Amino acid sequence: MIKVGIVGGTGYTGMELLRILLRHPAVSLEAITSRGQVGSRVDALFPALRGQTALCFAEPDADLLGGCDLVFFATPNGTAMEMAPTLLDRGTRVIDLGADFRLRDAALWSQWYGMPHACPDLLDEAVYGLPELNRRALRSAMLVANPGCYPTAVLLGLLPLLEVGVVDTSALIADCKSGVSGAGRGAQVHALLCEAGENFKSYGASGHRHLPEIRQGLAAVLGQEAGLVFVPHLVPMIRGMQATLYGRLQQPMTNDALQSLYAARYLDEPFVDVLPAGSHPETRSVRGTNLCRIAVHRPPDVDQVLVLSVIDNLGKGAATQAVQNMNLMFGRDEAEGLDVLPVLP
Amino acid sequence: MIKVGIVGGTGYTGMELLRILLRHPAVSLEAITSRGQVGSRVDALFPALRGQTALCFAEPDADLLGGCDLVFFATPNGTAMEMAPTLLDRGTRVIDLGADFRLRDAALWSQWYGMPHACPDLLDEAVYGLPELNRRALRSAMLVANPGCYPTAVLLGLLPLLEVGVVDTSALIADCKSGVSGAGRGAQVHALLCEAGENFKSYGASGHRHLPEIRQGLAAVLGQEAGLVFVPHLVPMIRGMQATLYGRLQQPMTNDALQSLYAARYLDEPFVDVLPAGSHPETRSVRGTNLCRIAVHRPPDVDQVLVLSVIDNLGKGAATQAVQNMNLMFGRDEAEGLDVLPVLP
Amino acid sequence: MIKVGIVGGTGYTGMELLRILLRHPAVSLEAITSRGQVGSRVDALFPALRGQTALCFAEPDADLLGGCDLVFFATPNGTAMEMAPTLLDRGTRVIDLGADFRLRDAALWSQWYGMPHACPDLLDEAVYGLPELNRRALRSAMLVANPGCYPTAVLLGLLPLLEVGVVDTSALIADCKSGVSGAGRGAQVHALLCEAGENFKSYGASGHRHLPEIRQGLAAVLGQEAGLVFVPHLVPMIRGMQATLYGRLQQPMTNDALQSLYAARYLDEPFVDVLPAGSHPETRSVRGTNLCRIAVHRPPDVDQVLVLSVIDNLGKGAATQAVQNMNLMFGRDEAEGLDVLPVLP
Amino acid sequence: MIKVGIVGGTGYTGMELLRILLRHPAVSLEAITSRGQVGSRVDALFPALRGQTALCFAEPDADLLGGCDLVFFATPNGTAMEMAPTLLDRGTRVIDLGADFRLRDAALWSQWYGMPHACPDLLDEAVYGLPELNRRALRSAMLVANPGCYPTAVLLGLLPLLEVGVVDTSALIADCKSGVSGAGRGAQVHALLCEAGENFKSYGASGHRHLPEIRQGLAAVLGQEAGLVFVPHLVPMIRGMQATLYGRLQQPMTNDALQSLYAARYLDEPFVDVLPAGSHPETRSVRGTNLCRIAVHRPPDVDQVLVLSVIDNLGKGAATQAVQNMNLMFGRDEAEGLDVLPVLP
Repeated sequence: MIKVGIVGGTGYTGMELLRILLRHPAVSLEAITSRGQVGSRVDALFPALRGQTALCFAEPDADLLGGCDLVFFATPNGTAMEMAPTLLDRGTRVIDLGADFRLRDAALWSQWYGMPHACPDLLDEAVYGLPELNRRALRSAMLVANPGCYPTAVLLGLLPLLEVGVVDTSALIADCKSGVSGAGRGAQVHALLCEAGENFKSYGASGHRHLPEIRQGLAAVLGQEAGLVFVPHLVPMIRGMQATLYGRLQQPMTNDALQSLYAARYLDEPFVDVLPAGSHPETRSVRGTNLCRIAVHRPPDVDQVLVLSVIDNLGKGAATQAVQNMNLMFGRDEAEGLDVLPVLP
Repeated sequence: MIKVGIVGGTGYTGMELLRILLRHPAVSLEAITSRGQVGSRVDALFPALRGQTALCFAEPDADLLGGCDLVFFATPNGTAMEMAPTLLDRGTRVIDLGADFRLRDAALWSQWYGMPHACPDLLDEAVYGLPELNRRALRSAMLVANPGCYPTAVLLGLLPLLEVGVVDTSALIADCKSGVSGAGRGAQVHALLCEAGENFKSYGASGHRHLPEIRQGLAAVLGQEAGLVFVPHLVPMIRGMQATLYGRLQQPMTNDALQSLYAARYLDEPFVDVLPAGSHPETRSVRGTNLCRIAVHRPPDVDQVLVLSVIDNLGKGAATQAVQNMNLMFGRDEAEGLDVLPVLP
Repeated sequence: MIKVGIVGGTGYTGMELLRILLRHPAVSLEAITSRGQVGSRVDALFPALRGQTALCFAEPDADLLGGCDLVFFATPNGTAMEMAPTLLDRGTRVIDLGADFRLRDAALWSQWYGMPHACPDLLDEAVYGLPELNRRALRSAMLVANPGCYPTAVLLGLLPLLEVGVVDTSALIADCKSGVSGAGRGAQVHALLCEAGENFKSYGASGHRHLPEIRQGLAAVLGQEAGLVFVPHLVPMIRGMQATLYGRLQQPMTNDALQSLYAARYLDEPFVDVLPAGSHPETRSVRGTNLCRIAVHRPPDVDQVLVLSVIDNLGKGAATQAVQNMNLMFGRDEAEGLDVLPVLP
Repeated sequence: MIKVGIVGGTGYTGMELLRILLRHPAVSLEAITSRGQVGSRVDALFPALRGQTALCFAEPDADLLGGCDLVFFATPNGTAMEMAPTLLDRGTRVIDLGADFRLRDAALWSQWYGMPHACPDLLDEAVYGLPELNRRALRSAMLVANPGCYPTAVLLGLLPLLEVGVVDTSALIADCKSGVSGAGRGAQVHALLCEAGENFKSYGASGHRHLPEIRQGLAAVLGQEAGLVFVPHLVPMIRGMQATLYGRLQQPMTNDALQSLYAARYLDEPFVDVLPAGSHPETRSVRGTNLCRIAVHRPPDVDQVLVLSVIDNLGKGAATQAVQNMNLMFGRDEAEGLDVLPVLP
């Protein structure tokens, strides 16, 4: 059994980790921390888990967490980097669901996150936790930077095109849409039902923290910088994310050729599902799962390719991807504990 | 008083026409028809209108409607073209909220709408009812083709760029999002709350009926064909539409220059509101109104312009725009009866 | 023109007041205050009002407000009672949309609202602003306690039964449901879209602040205390409220007799609409309006009467009822400025 | 392995059965039928199940289904009664998720369902599938009438009170609220997102088909008829149901006594969770599960008891309860395949 701790168990990614880990056959959940809820039973805060666990929230103590094989950080940015060095020194592996280890460039990180980085020396060691890109490295990783939700949807959608070099990478467009849970469980006016419900809008068009992360991912694949417009939108629903991706084809390609390209690239991927030609994936079809479903289109009369990529922002965009990474790190079947079916309708 | 008739008063655009026309100071609503509801009181079908009108639904009779100064068709495609010639012969003006007169090319129309056109000779006479583009012609129009919702949001968003010729028009991108009311009031599985709620998806990526209409509008402004990718999406909300528009700049342009371009173009337009630089319009801010709110952005590090354009798909995208057109056709103040404030939250 | 001020213009009831008052033909909006937004333009905070007003938020200053004929308090409980005495002394009338003057018993008020009352002497002077009950007194009122949303829906639903004395008043039941806007615009976790959406629950079953207010209203009509179970529920929607009311009939009464009772009681009421027998009112049919729609039923096989009463919690349950009260206080047509139609769908 | 067939696999209860049965360790899904989808792959109609099953929809053929150990009918009322006799003759057991076998009185059934009953002789044999009431009989049942959603929520909420006889049973009140999925997957105007969204209403107040079913259940427990007012309401959400139940206490009872009564009654029930005193269960806390969560309250100042009972209308109210019944019928662990955690948020 993998002895696991969760730091920051009261937000949405923490809740989702709990749901998955409590049913994972190889995991023993040893500790869950929350400064604000120390001493409370987990199932008192989350009545949906009544009877599923006797754990109480604890202080994020290094001794407690250092006794685990693995600690997930489901915390605000800036928390994991304070504790990770200590845990790694004790031999405890770390998966950070926050952004602390996602950018390899500490200066760039500071610019976007508004604080100095506490352990820039660890940035090189951290493995970016997108298994479809870094599976081998993840198998031996001690520190994993779990990707952001937007970067996951965008990178999985673009990878096949980038790897074979058929699109103009100077002007990629990622028009992305997220459910409101992406804003977290903090009390914020813009995330109220009466503000976000029955409403649609873009946000962060002038710059969003996931932009440098996506750019870094693109550059890692391409070997050079790409030009990207990234526009996030807020959808009046709880979970779900779609990246609608546009690229200019540099050479003629039929719909069939594109379809084959995607099918071949993801043939062996357990969590990427390439839909039949002409399909439009729905976010609800991946709700609560670790799946990314993708459809590729050739719009009529223009030299463009269109990719539709959907994930659950709390699943493949956060918690279940973290569990997929855990499975890899500990030599387990990559899909263990993740074979849930979406609840529809 | 303008004597007005509505053909097809039981769908969502018909309901919205009713709401506006019952409060319009210069309109006398003479007739409303619905084959399925003949004889029923309007306020029995729509309890929200109890006491507001004593009208009953009637058969769509040429004598009845021919006694009106103006008839709105809020009908499925293919209906207005059957009756319009007769009404026009009697001197009754016509505004079609459907698609029958939107395309000037009858063959193209037949291809997209799956039936022969009943009066192709009227296509040249019909004025495309986008006041911001065709105000002068609308003043003397007998037959108005009220624009589709997507074309309205897209064209208003792109007009300033197209008119001054600063973007590459070979690959414009319109990533559009609509509330579910765009699907109408017909009983369809995909529009059920349990199918469309808590879900997001693209549809019609391989071709949507509004594509040729938008292309025609672009060509009218440009004097030549443009390349356009148009991808509609379904948003889990009732009303509202956003067009997120991307174009490659052919010359360097600052954010300020773009802002000035838009502000100047729409300075005198009563229903187009250009937001301050850096803004993100919300669909709810135009709910129930005839407004289009627009923001223009220069995303960082790429040679692209981004335009965010929101309307109410049943308002400026349908019924209130039709009333704006009526006001123009009958020499009234263009904004008469349309000065409603959105209900928020 | 009535010179009007609004204290607390940034919450939902303040926003709704703004929407109505900006279109009211007899109102001149002189001042709007918000401690947190002093100096900001109103239409900068609320882009939906762009161009509709040049007002800026001001400090809640006694001189500024004392120059008004009427001041609305759309503030948290405990604010109006601090300023009302000063304003009344200057001859400025006051309508409090909060709870400060709703209970006539200062001790009871303190018990439910957790603070001493600042001006218990004014409690007798305050008129409870339910026009259907207190129209005459409202005409000359200087200080109006605008009713809570639940009390409005419940009292209007029960009044006819209580006035003729046909139900057992020892065990009335009010099962009430409210949209989330009733929780206000403050940042609270339970009102997030991700918490309140796709969810339904009761709350406050052991005691809610509107309980003593409803009891007081019942006692005022009955001349004695009534027994009431009041259970509020949270509905995953923005606006709207239904009270489902149950009472045991003390004498046999047919459905027709009940229907006649309600129709007669509300025959002359401009804002209470008794639906035909067998109807089920919908909350959306009163959205954004001052209407209360009521249906009365005789369930089969039991000696019970069932009343369904719907309002918009921000309309007849708050802001539009306050404007109705203003109209009465200033001798205007009671419906002036309130003849808006609900936006459907 | 239990060889299972599903008749009517394209509605919401059929989909939910599929989700559960595809993961049930003791079930082999042999056949799924749908007249409208014969020959289509199940995962073509439901992309959320891609790769989970190779089954295709078949005709509802007696030979095919007669080869199963158990057939679930997830069909419109009137279908199961046509096929059940044949299947039972072949030794195939039947669970009907529809209403065909819920009422023991064929005449009453005909009155409410508007058709003669095809096999009234089977009504006595059918076991009403509420395990908390009929566990022993279910173990040997050949034909199970799976309860309606409202009856499940109401009966589980009232059972403890009825069994000890502490409430006046002449005027029980069940104010019930359901998500829209209760209306099924058929295309109906009232279930459109634009009709049911942002709206709340009662329906069926003059008589709903679940009323006689609840009355029969009450009578079975009490040994005599009870008086019940049952008012269903439609909640703008997909899944979830709450019964808010009121009864007049015939003897003084403290909150503690009530709490103990409920805790004791359901102590050994795996799927009924009695919440701590003072709680308000949320429908989302049981979403996708077989749980019923209950809270009991003593409202202040009246001699009433209040019970809050929540279920998932498609879970304990339909499909998962059917699987619980299957487990009982086949001697399996009652909870097998049903230990899923709700997806929150």
